[in-house]
Order: sequence, then structure tokens, then C-alpha cells
Amino acid sequence: MAKNVGILAMDIYFPPTCIQQEALEAHDGASKGKYTIGLGQDCMAFCTELEDVISMSLTVVTSLLEKYGVDAKQIGRLEVGSETVIDKSKSIKTFLMQIFEKFGNTDIEGVDSTNACYGGTAALFNCVNWVESSSWDGRYGLVVCTDSAVYAEGPARPTGGAAAIAMLIGPDAPIAFESKLRGSHMSHAYDFYKPNLASEYPVVDGKLSQTCYLMALDSCYKHFCDKYEKVEGKQFYISDADYFVFHSPYNKLVQKSFARLLFNDFLRNPSSLAEGAKEKLHPFSTLSGEESYQNRDLEKASQQVAKPLYDEKVQPTTLIPKQVGNMYTASLYAAFASLIHNKKSTLAGNRVVLFSYGSGLTATIFSLRLRDCQHPFSLSNISTVMDIAGKLKSRHEFPPEKFVETMKLMEHRYGAKDIVTSKDSSLLLTGTYYLTEVDSMYRRFYAKKTSDSSITPSNNGSIANGHCK
Amino acid sequence: MAKNVGILAMDIYFPPTCIQQEALEAHDGASKGKYTIGLGQDCMAFCTELEDVISMSLTVVTSLLEKYGVDAKQIGRLEVGSETVIDKSKSIKTFLMQIFEKFGNTDIEGVDSTNACYGGTAALFNCVNWVESSSWDGRYGLVVCTDSAVYAEGPARPTGGAAAIAMLIGPDAPIAFESKLRGSHMSHAYDFYKPNLASEYPVVDGKLSQTCYLMALDSCYKHFCDKYEKVEGKQFYISDADYFVFHSPYNKLVQKSFARLLFNDFLRNPSSLAEGAKEKLHPFSTLSGEESYQNRDLEKASQQVAKPLYDEKVQPTTLIPKQVGNMYTASLYAAFASLIHNKKSTLAGNRVVLFSYGSGLTATIFSLRLRDCQHPFSLSNISTVMDIAGKLKSRHEFPPEKFVETMKLMEHRYGAKDIVTSKDSSLLLTGTYYLTEVDSMYRRFYAKKTSDSSITPSNNGSIANGHCK
Repeated sequence: MAKNVGILAMDIYFPPTCIQQEALEAHDGASKGKYTIGLGQDCMAFCTELEDVISMSLTVVTSLLEKYGVDAKQIGRLEVGSETVIDKSKSIKTFLMQIFEKFGNTDIEGVDSTNACYGGTAALFNCVNWVESSSWDGRYGLVVCTDSAVYAEGPARPTGGAAAIAMLIGPDAPIAFESKLRGSHMSHAYDFYKPNLASEYPVVDGKLSQTCYLMALDSCYKHFCDKYEKVEGKQFYISDADYFVFHSPYNKLVQKSFARLLFNDFLRNPSSLAEGAKEKLHPFSTLSGEESYQNRDLEKASQQVAKPLYDEKVQPTTLIPKQVGNMYTASLYAAFASLIHNKKSTLAGNRVVLFSYGSGLTATIFSLRLRDCQHPFSLSNISTVMDIAGKLKSRHEFPPEKFVETMKLMEHRYGAKDIVTSKDSSLLLTGTYYLTEVDSMYRRFYAKKTSDSSITPSNNGSIANGHCK
Repeated sequence: MAKNVGILAMDIYFPPTCIQQEALEAHDGASKGKYTIGLGQDCMAFCTELEDVISMSLTVVTSLLEKYGVDAKQIGRLEVGSETVIDKSKSIKTFLMQIFEKFGNTDIEGVDSTNACYGGTAALFNCVNWVESSSWDGRYGLVVCTDSAVYAEGPARPTGGAAAIAMLIGPDAPIAFESKLRGSHMSHAYDFYKPNLASEYPVVDGKLSQTCYLMALDSCYKHFCDKYEKVEGKQFYISDADYFVFHSPYNKLVQKSFARLLFNDFLRNPSSLAEGAKEKLHPFSTLSGEESYQNRDLEKASQQVAKPLYDEKVQPTTLIPKQVGNMYTASLYAAFASLIHNKKSTLAGNRVVLFSYGSGLTATIFSLRLRDCQHPFSLSNISTVMDIAGKLKSRHEFPPEKFVETMKLMEHRYGAKDIVTSKDSSLLLTGTYYLTEVDSMYRRFYAKKTSDSSITPSNNGSIANGHCK
């Protein structure tokens, strides 16, 4: 069986168009700090009419192959995690096949995985399992997480975001799976869902969703700790991992979640905590599970106790989620990308524990072991290729009015046909794919921005419509 | 690594409500034989307002666990293949978790896989890979294929159908994967897709879809033969497999497909065919690929040549697809179930080659080796449990007017909320789950028919709405 299977390379793309949460807060008439401190968010990326989950995936996959020098023929599996439905039957993966067909490679397994923000994790597990299975043919796997998170006007709107992440999968990886250390919790819930098929917006019960998230976290952590004990012969505590990465709908929930893990450690074994911490959490030790999710004093006390550890083990993972927003399937991996951006090759030897959550609900805690590997698949090169600082710096901030106008246009565009988009791609970086047209048969056409000229002819670099060739 | 991983057990469910193709043909004013001979279809199952892809999955999973005596706690992975979207974010898998939560098992990996009729195959491959991977925890996997295929009035309407299939996955299986023998073809095409999000009906180009299907078949067969030669050190011909199972949108395409494989054998090595057959195909040996898909004379000649082999190697797989219709993700496995129903334990030692196709497009040819295994996971017990003859016999034929009326009702119901369904479940068999209500928040409630009484109280056996417990 292939060894140290995991993530060899990563790239991330998010739209260059964004809005500051402080400006949105003021525009919405929300109390000062509601989005920035209450939610813990700084900025939010969004797609204009030129971009969607397909264009973002085309951009990030093309970029990854180019920047790591991977031949399109070396890919043997490609799968996508997404909850942004443009077509209910035709997978996003088939759109991406345009990249590979050009090189004569159509023998590529995998389709799309779906369950809210968890689809990317499912795709990643599937791809790693493929490399370890007897059906592996020696080629690389490729996992893409792509989503555009938009909400109707109201309290959930500032929790949007958009991004696509591509991850190359294979053996001997700098980001290797510790596959025996994994705990899942899956159940039937209606915390966030998309039953209104004609609308891009979800039905969301914010309070229920937060409780579901924290209950799933507790349950996954319990399973994870049980498995750790079985494999390692000792108890798992927060101190056994160097970093913790959480699916991040908004940063405040990440702060609560890490505190919740600490509270779990405390309940399991109070003496795993320092004396002062123990005292602060003691009053809450007799709360029922249900009560503990609603108790504000516990929330406050546990976050206070956890703060130094949060700064050390979680804060380095929060950059992109705070700056770009909720990217659904891409959120967890954008948080992980932030860690690589911040810590680079110092991560070699570290254990990183990740919590993936998708409403509805599906959740898993799993563990990665980071390793020193050779260029181009080294942690430092991954950081260089992703160029997160550069991408964040080159963004264009929209004033709230223009953001709201864009959201209104996108509402009308969702599911529509007979559309020709703006010819002005000036805000996009060179190499970015963008939507040019949806024809009368709902067929979608994309072009690649090939120079920095603000007006690109719509046929320049266009990907032709597929005719099953 | 686990050995002989594959399908340990199967069960199938299709709605008891159906329409004879002959009656539909007459009602539609189609020429006599258009549906029965032209498409090769006998009968078509459909969901009334009481059933959907979720209820059918609940029915078939519950039935499989019961009939094979599998404890709900023994399941470690559950994944669903479907292209019938009821919710764009919340997976069908999370609805099925209700079955397992009751027994305290929430640590079950897997979500939904999507690409037209191929999602079930993707789920199956993922599940088999999981058992062979280092993340396997020793428990069973469970794969569910569930779809309801409905079309707008017009030429595609008779190609509908509905079913759900459940397959238990593990090592030492009577239906084992030959995982090295696999060829895929995936590309970007608009042959059949569902871009109109508010409608249950697809956009379909019947002629293009058939060509895409046959081109994908050719390409997969080429890859499959290449891999066979690499592994076995000799060429693969039709004679190297005992049975061929095809995704079956309608039976006529299956007849064409098998003939196409034979034509491929002929092109690769004319002397692999008998003298008479060679002569009949010779005139077509210089056709270009493109021409060969449109050539009616070739179609006729190759089907004529293939007929005796078709009767031997394909006909035993056609019962359910002809009687139930296109079941999308479940179609291929319903065809395979027909083979087990017809041939039972005589299949031990046989190689069965399957072709899975999903528009958009994704396709794979793969190989199974059938084996003599112990009860309850024996081929003969699988046949007994599925009780296909019994299920076909106990159906209720609707007259065309009542079928059309049902389709109209279902059009209005698709994506709707605030619905209470009929209390009359008399047509359903005991043990069948059915939809009772969609509330004002789009939350769906199901009940299980617990006796043969025609009126069951809506709360009897009801599955409570999930509250993330």
C-alpha cells in the first residue's frame, strides 16, 4: 500500500472583488462591531456576474498544474466538493474535464460530492483512499473545493464568501493523512439547507446551526479521542496536536469551538488543565450537554481559559476565513492554507487536527502529519505558489451599494439562460477564467483572461462547448 | 489489504405503481411498437405523491439490514448516488442517518455522489476503496442508488422509471471487484442535464445523448482492453467475460451497445470473429468513428451478428430495466440484479463486465468476479432476498390518464412546501416508507407502513424531525 498518502500541492483562488465588513455593518445599520467583533470577520469576497464555481475551479486547477509543473496526463482522478448547484445533474467535474481533454486525457475517475460545506472533505477522503486502494493506477488525484456563499438580505448576509481550492493527492506527501485517527458524526438535521430550488439562498436557522455544529464537534472529538487511545494507547488532549483547524462559517464560532474542545478535555480529565483553568471551568462541570450549549457564562469562561492556546494553535489558521468569508467546502482548507502561509516549513513534524462540518449534517475530525518534502512538493513551495498575501493585497473593495447591486443582479442571473456577461474583465487577474455567456439552451461558455488589457474579446482563449469528443 | 472486496448483499425497491408501455404508446398516439419495440421497453414504474428518492432509500436500506440480519452499528460508511435533487445542500445520506441514529451509530462516513446516472458507480468505487484503504475500521460499507426519472410530455416521457438499490460492501464478497480492470472516459458534454432548477425535468438531446453514450463506451472499452492486456498479458475479447451489463436508459440502446463492443473486437482483430460475422462487418471497417455512430446499416448488421451472443451474455440482465424503466443511478445495478435473479449461484466463477454511463459525461467499464460464498452473503440468498419476481407480480398498473394526472400533480409538488399527502397508502407494501408532509419550512416527514390496512394514521411509525441529536 502507498505510504504517507496526502496532499502534495495546493492552490487557492478567491474573487478579487470584496467588501469590508465594517462598511457593510454601517450600511446595514447594524450596531458597530456586530460583523467585525460579533462575527469576527474582516472582509468578504463575492463573485460578480463574471465568476461562478465553475470559472473559479477552472482557474485554480489550471494554476495548480502550471505552477507545480504537473502534466495533465498525470491526473488519474479528479473530484469536486461543492454545494453551489448550477446544474442538478451535470457535475462541476465534467466542466473541468475541458482542461484534460485538450491533452487527450479522459480516463479520469471521480465526480462531485455533496453535503453542504462537507463535500470537499468527502472528496479528499475518497481521493486518499483511492491512492491506497488496489484500483490506484499510479497517477495523481486532484480534489477541488469550490463554492460561492451568498445569503438573502438580513443577519446572515455578512457570512458569505467565495473561493476555490485545488489539492493534488499522492503518496509521500508533505501533508500526510493519519487515517486511523478519524471520528465522524452524521445525523439528520435542518439547520441549514437549500430546499428552495429556484433560489441560490439557503434556508438557515443560525442558532440551531451553531448548536448542531458544536454538538457534532463534541461527538467527533469523542470518537476521535477513542480512536487515538486505541491506536496510541494513551489519552488524547489538545496538547497532542500543534494546530487545530476548524470549518469557519465566521471566526467567532471557531473561537467557541476551540474553547469547547478544551472544555471536553476538562470534563474527561480535569487534571489535564492547569490549576487556574480548572477552577474557572469547575462551576460548569455538572451542566447537562444541552444546557452547556446555551450557557453564556461557560462560553465566556472557556474562551478566556483557552485564549493563550487559541493564539498559539488556532490563530495562525484564521487569516483567509476572516478576509474572504465563508467559502463553504473551501473554508476548512482555506484555513489550513492560512496555516501553511503563516508557518511554512516550520510545520514539518507537526500534527494538525482538522474539523470539517457540513449542515444537514455531516462532520469529521481528522489528523494530518506534516513532513519535510522535496521541491516542488514542499511546504515552503506550497506557501510560495499560493501567494496568499499577494492575492489579498490585489483585491478591489466595493462600496456597500455596489455590493448590494451585484447581489441583486446575481439573484436574477441564478438559473437563468440567454445571458451575455459584461466584456469588462479589468478587475480579474491574468489567468482567471470567467463566464462569457449562457445560451438559450443553458449552455455555459467561459474564457480565460490572457493579458491585463481591461477589455478582452469574448472569444479570446474561449473554451469551446463540448460535443462529447 | 482486505481481499476480494465487493458487494456482499443487495436489495432493490421500486414503486408498486406502474404503466404498461403499450398502453402509454396508444394513449400518446405513437405508432404501434414505438415504445415496446423501438425503445425495447415493457413497463415503467413511477412515484406517486407518497414516494420520492428519500422514502425509497429509507425502504431499501431498512429492508437490507433486516433481511440479511446486519446490525445498524456494523455500518461504518454510507454513501448515496443520485441525480434527483430534493435539496441542493442537504444530502440524501443525512435523511438515511435516521435509521442509524436510533441505534446510537452516528460515526458513519460518506455523503452523496453526483453526476447524472453515474453517481451510484462513483459511490460504489469510493466504498470499495475505503475497505481497501488504511482508514477502513473493519465495519461494512453501504451504497445506495436512488432516483426517480421523469420527463416532460413528449418523446422522452416513456424513458422514465424509479427505484432504489442498496448494496452492502466488505471483504470476501460473492461479488468481488477486479479493480485493476477498469477504463473510464469523462468529458464535457451537454447531452442531458438539469439546468432548469425549478423543474424536475431534464433538458435532453436524445440523439446527442445516444452518440455520447456510444462514444464513451468505445473509449472506456479501449482503456479497459489496454489495462486487461497489461494485467493479463493477452488481448481482451467479448469471449473473456460471461456477462455484460449496461446502463439502460432503454433496452434498444443496450442492444446497440453490445453490438458496438463486438464491432470494436472486429476492428481490433477481425479474426477474433467467426467467418460469417467477419464478412457481414467487413463493409464498415473503413468508416470513420464519427460516421460509424450514424450508420444505420452498421447498426443493423452488428446487432444481427451479435444476436446469439446478446441472448447468452446480455439478455439475462435486462428484466428489471425493461419492466421498471430507466432508474438513473440504479439502472446499471438493477440490470445486474436481474442477472443474479436469473442465474443465481450458477454465476460462481463468472466474470461480469459492467458499463456505467452518466450524461454530462462520466463513464466507466469495470469488471466483477462472482464467487461462491456462505449464507447470508451467497448469490442464491441475494436472489431470494431481492424477490424480484414477487415484487414485479404485486404491482398496480395505472391507466394512462391516471399516470398523466399523477405526473401533473408531481410537477406542482416539486420543490413545494406546505403539503400533506394522501392518507391512502393501500397500494404500498408493508415496510414501505412514504412521505406524509412537507411543512412550511420545507421539512419533510416520512412514515413506515406497518400493516396492510389501507389507511394508516400519519403518525404511525413516523420518523421524527431531526434536532441534531
